[in-house]
Amino acid sequence: MTESPAPRSTTPEAAESAPAPFTAADYRARMARAAESAAEAGLAGVLVAPGPDLTYLTGYRPTAITERLTVLVLVPGGDPVLVVPALEAPDAAKAAGAAAFTVRDWTDAKDPYAVTAPLLDAAGRFGVSDNTWALHLLGLQQALPGTSYASLTEALPMLRAVKDPHELARIAAAGAAADETYGEILKVRFAGRTENDVAADLAALLLGFGHSQVDFTVVGSGPNGANPHHEAGDRTIEHGDMVVLDFGGLKHGYGSDTTRTVHVGEPTAEERRVHDLVREAQQAGFEAVRTGAACQDVDRAARKVITDAGYGEYFIHRTGHGIGVTTHEPPYMIEGEERPVVPGMCFSIEPGIYLPGRFGVRIEDIVTLTEDGTGRRFNNTPREMALVE
Amino acid sequence: MTESPAPRSTTPEAAESAPAPFTAADYRARMARAAESAAEAGLAGVLVAPGPDLTYLTGYRPTAITERLTVLVLVPGGDPVLVVPALEAPDAAKAAGAAAFTVRDWTDAKDPYAVTAPLLDAAGRFGVSDNTWALHLLGLQQALPGTSYASLTEALPMLRAVKDPHELARIAAAGAAADETYGEILKVRFAGRTENDVAADLAALLLGFGHSQVDFTVVGSGPNGANPHHEAGDRTIEHGDMVVLDFGGLKHGYGSDTTRTVHVGEPTAEERRVHDLVREAQQAGFEAVRTGAACQDVDRAARKVITDAGYGEYFIHRTGHGIGVTTHEPPYMIEGEERPVVPGMCFSIEPGIYLPGRFGVRIEDIVTLTEDGTGRRFNNTPREMALVE
Repeated sequence: MTESPAPRSTTPEAAESAPAPFTAADYRARMARAAESAAEAGLAGVLVAPGPDLTYLTGYRPTAITERLTVLVLVPGGDPVLVVPALEAPDAAKAAGAAAFTVRDWTDAKDPYAVTAPLLDAAGRFGVSDNTWALHLLGLQQALPGTSYASLTEALPMLRAVKDPHELARIAAAGAAADETYGEILKVRFAGRTENDVAADLAALLLGFGHSQVDFTVVGSGPNGANPHHEAGDRTIEHGDMVVLDFGGLKHGYGSDTTRTVHVGEPTAEERRVHDLVREAQQAGFEAVRTGAACQDVDRAARKVITDAGYGEYFIHRTGHGIGVTTHEPPYMIEGEERPVVPGMCFSIEPGIYLPGRFGVRIEDIVTLTEDGTGRRFNNTPREMALVE
Repeated sequence: MTESPAPRSTTPEAAESAPAPFTAADYRARMARAAESAAEAGLAGVLVAPGPDLTYLTGYRPTAITERLTVLVLVPGGDPVLVVPALEAPDAAKAAGAAAFTVRDWTDAKDPYAVTAPLLDAAGRFGVSDNTWALHLLGLQQALPGTSYASLTEALPMLRAVKDPHELARIAAAGAAADETYGEILKVRFAGRTENDVAADLAALLLGFGHSQVDFTVVGSGPNGANPHHEAGDRTIEHGDMVVLDFGGLKHGYGSDTTRTVHVGEPTAEERRVHDLVREAQQAGFEAVRTGAACQDVDRAARKVITDAGYGEYFIHRTGHGIGVTTHEPPYMIEGEERPVVPGMCFSIEPGIYLPGRFGVRIEDIVTLTEDGTGRRFNNTPREMALVE
C-alpha cells in the first residue's frame, strides 16, 4: 500500500469501547426462540452446522469447518444439544453460550450420524442451516430415511433477521466505522494509483476504525465499475474515471456494508445524470421502508426510478440483502419476496446502473425499519457524487 | 510478534521459482477423468460447488461462497458446464480452466435450480461435492425429485487423492518450506513468550518461505499440548514445558502439514519415553506404507506401538488424512478405511499421546507411496526431540 492514511476516530461512535458480550442467557433465549419458531412452522426441530447461524445461536465458532460433523440440535420442548467431534469438545465448552447447551461428543471411530439420529424424531421434518455440508445432510438422510429437510432460509428465514437493541447498536457502530472509512478515503490520491492500492487503504481504514474482519473492498474504476462483482485489480485509476467503492466487514461481530461512487476530477453530464438517477432510486427504496411494506416493495420502488428513466436493463441485480452476524443474509429485497419488512430488520438498499465497457454507479446504505414505522439509515455520508483527485 | 526471525531460503527447493501454472488442458483432463470415474461408479454425473473440488477441476475460485448457486456439472460424454450467477460470470470466465468449460449464467430473478435441472438426468444418481451447501442440495432434490445423491467422499473418494508428478512436486516444495520453518523456529526463544508469539513466528516463517496461505499454527505448551485441537493461546511458555508445534498451509496451491514436539530445557524420563514411543509409532506407520496396504493398515501399525506400550487410550484421533489443494482431505488413515494406498496418494502420519492436564506429544510427516512401492516422506527434519530455550 502506498500513501496509507492513518485512521483516527473522529466520532464518539467509533471511539466507544467494546459492547458487553452476549451472555449464556442471550444465547438460551435465541435458541428457545428458534425452537419455538420451528414448532410454529410445523418442524420437528432445527439443525445448525458451524457458520453464522451457530455463531448467532451459541457463540461457538470452530477454528475450522471440516468434514467432521458439528451440529446443534434444537427440538421444541427439549434442551439444546451440540454434537461435536471429541477433539473439538474442549473448544466448544469455551463458547460464550456453552452454559445453554449440552455437548454430545463423538470420536473418529464412531459414525456421527448414528450419534445424532437418536436426538431426532425419525419421521420429522427439520430446518437445516443453509451452509450445512451436503456430506452431512446426506449422512442424516441416510441414517434417518423417514426424515425430511428444508433450508433455514426457506423454513425460518426470519431466524436472525430481526435484531434486538443490542444487535442494532452493533450494526450502527459498524456502519459508523464504515462511514468514517469513507470520509478518510476521499482524502487519498486516486489518479495514478491502482485499484488494489485504494482497496488496501479501505481495508486498513476499516481495521483502524475497529473492524475485526474485512469482508470486501470493491474498487471498480472506469469500465471495471460496470461489473458489479468486480473486486479490485491492478488497473491504474485515471483522471476522468468513475470509481465504485463498496466495502464492509465485521465490527464486534456485526456487519457493515456501504457503497459510494466517486469521480476523479469533473464528471461528464451523462455521468452526473446516471449518478443522480441511482441516488434517486436509492432514496425511493429508502422511502419504501415502512410498516406494511413487503421486501419486494423496496426493490420495486428503487427499480421503478431506474426503469422509468430507460436504464432498467442496466440494473442487473436485486436491490438489497440482510446484514447481521454476516454481511450477506436474508431478507432479500427482490421481486417475489413478499414477506413484510418488520421493525429490527437490517438490510442494504443498493441500486446500481452498469454500462458495459464504460462505467458503473452504485449507492448503498444499511437501513432498518424502526418501531415508529419509518426507515433509519446506518450509513449517513453524503450520497452526492464526491470528486476526488 | 516479538523477536521475529527473518526467514531466509536455505535449500534449493525453497528458493525455486513458481511452478508453471496448470493449463486448460490439465483441467480438461481432470474433468474428463472425474466424469469417467462417475460413470464407472454408476453415477449419472458429478456436481461440484465452490471449494477445493472446483479449484482442482477448473481453477475457478469465486471471491466468496454465498447463497447464490455456482455448480459445475460433469456428465459422462457431455461437455462440462459451469452454472454461475450472472454477476460472477466475468470472474468465472477468467479462471485458468475456463477454456475447458461452458458458462451457463442465471440472474437473480431466476430459479437457479430450474436453470440447472435440464442439464441433469431426472432419474440419475449424482456425486456432489462434500461442502455443497444443504440449501443447494435441497433445491436440486426439490427441482428433480427423481434424482439421488452421494457425497464425493463416499462416491468418488479418490477424485483428488492420487497426485500427478506436477502436484507431487508442489507438495514436496510445500513440505520443504515447512521443514525450513521448523529449522528456524528452533532458534527462537520459547521460555517467557506466549504460545501466540511463537505461532506468529511460525506464520511469518511459512509466508517467508513461500506459502501464500497459513492454515494453522498450533503451539500447544505444557497441558495445552494434551488437547490435540488446541491452536495457540495466551499461555506463557515455561522452562520444563513440552511444546507441540503443528503448522501448515498452502504454497503454490498445495498443502503442507508437519508436527514436531520440542522441549524447553531438559525433559524428564517420562517425557522422553512418551516422545520415543510416538516416534516409534510414526516410524511404524511410515513403514506400513507400501503396495498392497490399506489405509487402515497405516493407522493400525502406528496405533499398535502405542497400544502395546499401554498408552492406547491416550491416542484419541485417527492416524492421518490426505493433503493436496487442501490441508485436510481424503483418504483418511483410520480403522475401517479398507481402500488401498496407491502410488501418488499423499497423506499425513501423525500419531500422538495426550496426557490430560499434563502434556502431549505428536509427530507428523506428509508421506506418499512411490511407484517403487515404498513410502517417501515430504518432511525430513529430525524426529528426535529437539531441546529449545
